[in-house]
Amino acid sequence: MVNYFSSDFKLGILGGGQLGKMMLYETRKYDIQTLVMDPSDEAPCKISCNHFEQGDLMDYETVLKFGRKADVLTFEIEGVNVEALKKLESEGIKTYPSASTLEKIQNKAVQKKFYSEKQLPTAPFKVFDTIEDLKNSLSAKEIEIPFVWKSATGGYDGKGVSVIKNAEDVKKLPEGECIAEQLIPFKNELAVIVARNPSGDIKTYPVVEMEFHPTANQVEYVICPARIENTVAEKARVLAEKVSDAFQHVGLLAVEMFQTEDDDILINEVAPRPHNSGHYSIEASYTNQFEQHIRAILDLPLGNTESKVGGIMVNLVGDKDHEGEVQYENIEEIMSLDGVTPHIYGKKITRPFRKMGHVTIVDKDLSKAREVAEKVKNSIKVISKNK
Amino acid sequence: MVNYFSSDFKLGILGGGQLGKMMLYETRKYDIQTLVMDPSDEAPCKISCNHFEQGDLMDYETVLKFGRKADVLTFEIEGVNVEALKKLESEGIKTYPSASTLEKIQNKAVQKKFYSEKQLPTAPFKVFDTIEDLKNSLSAKEIEIPFVWKSATGGYDGKGVSVIKNAEDVKKLPEGECIAEQLIPFKNELAVIVARNPSGDIKTYPVVEMEFHPTANQVEYVICPARIENTVAEKARVLAEKVSDAFQHVGLLAVEMFQTEDDDILINEVAPRPHNSGHYSIEASYTNQFEQHIRAILDLPLGNTESKVGGIMVNLVGDKDHEGEVQYENIEEIMSLDGVTPHIYGKKITRPFRKMGHVTIVDKDLSKAREVAEKVKNSIKVISKNK
Repeated sequence: MVNYFSSDFKLGILGGGQLGKMMLYETRKYDIQTLVMDPSDEAPCKISCNHFEQGDLMDYETVLKFGRKADVLTFEIEGVNVEALKKLESEGIKTYPSASTLEKIQNKAVQKKFYSEKQLPTAPFKVFDTIEDLKNSLSAKEIEIPFVWKSATGGYDGKGVSVIKNAEDVKKLPEGECIAEQLIPFKNELAVIVARNPSGDIKTYPVVEMEFHPTANQVEYVICPARIENTVAEKARVLAEKVSDAFQHVGLLAVEMFQTEDDDILINEVAPRPHNSGHYSIEASYTNQFEQHIRAILDLPLGNTESKVGGIMVNLVGDKDHEGEVQYENIEEIMSLDGVTPHIYGKKITRPFRKMGHVTIVDKDLSKAREVAEKVKNSIKVISKNK
Repeated sequence: MVNYFSSDFKLGILGGGQLGKMMLYETRKYDIQTLVMDPSDEAPCKISCNHFEQGDLMDYETVLKFGRKADVLTFEIEGVNVEALKKLESEGIKTYPSASTLEKIQNKAVQKKFYSEKQLPTAPFKVFDTIEDLKNSLSAKEIEIPFVWKSATGGYDGKGVSVIKNAEDVKKLPEGECIAEQLIPFKNELAVIVARNPSGDIKTYPVVEMEFHPTANQVEYVICPARIENTVAEKARVLAEKVSDAFQHVGLLAVEMFQTEDDDILINEVAPRPHNSGHYSIEASYTNQFEQHIRAILDLPLGNTESKVGGIMVNLVGDKDHEGEVQYENIEEIMSLDGVTPHIYGKKITRPFRKMGHVTIVDKDLSKAREVAEKVKNSIKVISKNK
């Protein structure tokens, strides 16, 4: 058995953003040594890790050189050179999630085909190598407007995804491999985080629900537990477990799903790492998702995924009219509300819709937390000092 | 209003041990810049702060020079040069807790006299400048065996305190200013953490109870909430608030108290900082003590001090027969129990009874947490690799 605690063992983390930063609270708690690499010299992870390196995560040699210094390697972002991870695995460095899992997830076309192969439910789709192919398929009436366009690679935080409603929308689509997915009306967008360790132990977090703004098509709150029927929740949970099992995933897998009008559950997409939909767990769960990820990849016993209290998460994104040195307006006002915890990621510059932090609201009574969450949403603003 | 979050504001922390380390989780969460000074170059705070300095906390010039770099100054250990803090205050650097509060607490004789002056209940005592004076007082029958001897300065973690039961015990007492305190039989040792900000807002944490080993005179568990009558708990809470008010304390004040056989509450001693008796709060409270300390000293709104779940804390101290490079035996075994969180402080060398970490056990049912705590206590061991 490896001795991780206050030892010479080194965990390498590719990516040094907010997910890595929150992971480091846990490695500090356990006194596990960490190496972090990120392209930015101002990455949120720069302090709190034992060793920080600036480097390109997509560069084969850079990742290889970095990875060789670690005993176990993980990542907090999907944009990592997979070939380098494969080489590192062949050299005996444990990489969790594995290179082959990441490879299947990095490219959304590959990911969707994987679900089809494994007979896992997902919205019907077609894959196109070029945008020209997509247009030809439209002309041939193989696909129909409306549909959802997804870029096969590079999508993140809502980028690389569009609902195509008319011919004008089609004209705006960029070059590159993509998917056209049938637009399926859904009642709810749900997510389940699955933790799985190399020994094959598996635990799922409760189903969470994304509550959208009534008019703007934007997630406003992540709510745990989802306010849905138990039978539906159980269906979503079981499906998420199946997905994790299909990938033979190690670490955390966040499975985003749709609950259709007929209460069917369809897989939307997955993320092989701690996820925005699990941030509530820091304050609400017995074991938060970051600690769980560390436990999973080190093959330690998985912690209790139940919640102590109801939890709601609100993202703190840069105001659409502000760019520059960040300032958090009314943060002290929201801190005066019971059960409210702001998390500030430590990015110096705000930009429209940039993820700058999040706020968790907890309460034994979820509906009370929901009321407080609305107050939070309506007061705090992420602006720049000099607009 | 000062802007603390992702700004140029700098919080200075004197002392870089485990209390500082846990404080830094919170400054990281809020992205508040920190400077830390500690005499050890291997202090647990060395990473996670923005700037670390090695230096003697009792040296006037060193503390002065360090403090001038901060906008607000705090400490995580009482052994700090008070004259330097006074000078810094006179230069306009906010120091919380204040130099005058720390001065009253640093010396136990001064602290006890302060309680007498303020008519705050504490065990009857006499102060002696030298051990010779104490012996003369004994001969003159002004004090009687048994009594509790306490060194006025330098006491920490049970050092500097002895129960004197016979003439032999008296002979062993070291030189220096000291107190002889009447030995009062007590039912329970209790503690309350009080948070107070410069605006005078005040909040108290629930009363916790120290459970002692049935035969060895050693605290085994800190239990929140204390398993005592509500009327007694309320008495302890009110007294703790009075103590905080008497000191005009800013930050956290941990008030340790005795519950006598007659259910009177007597002050034992106080600590002007986050405290061992509040470690449970990281997992159990809506606002943990470290976040609360930061909120208090920065005059931010104080957070909710209530508990989400019952909490029990077990100290991880070095095994009495081991000294050397540390190893945590059976840590994976305790991690397989629900609601168990180990905290490893990051000290490389274990020594008999050295505080190396702690474990928190939480459960909605406190008696269940107590059962698990016993399993934890009986399995994990802090040993050295090569005994």
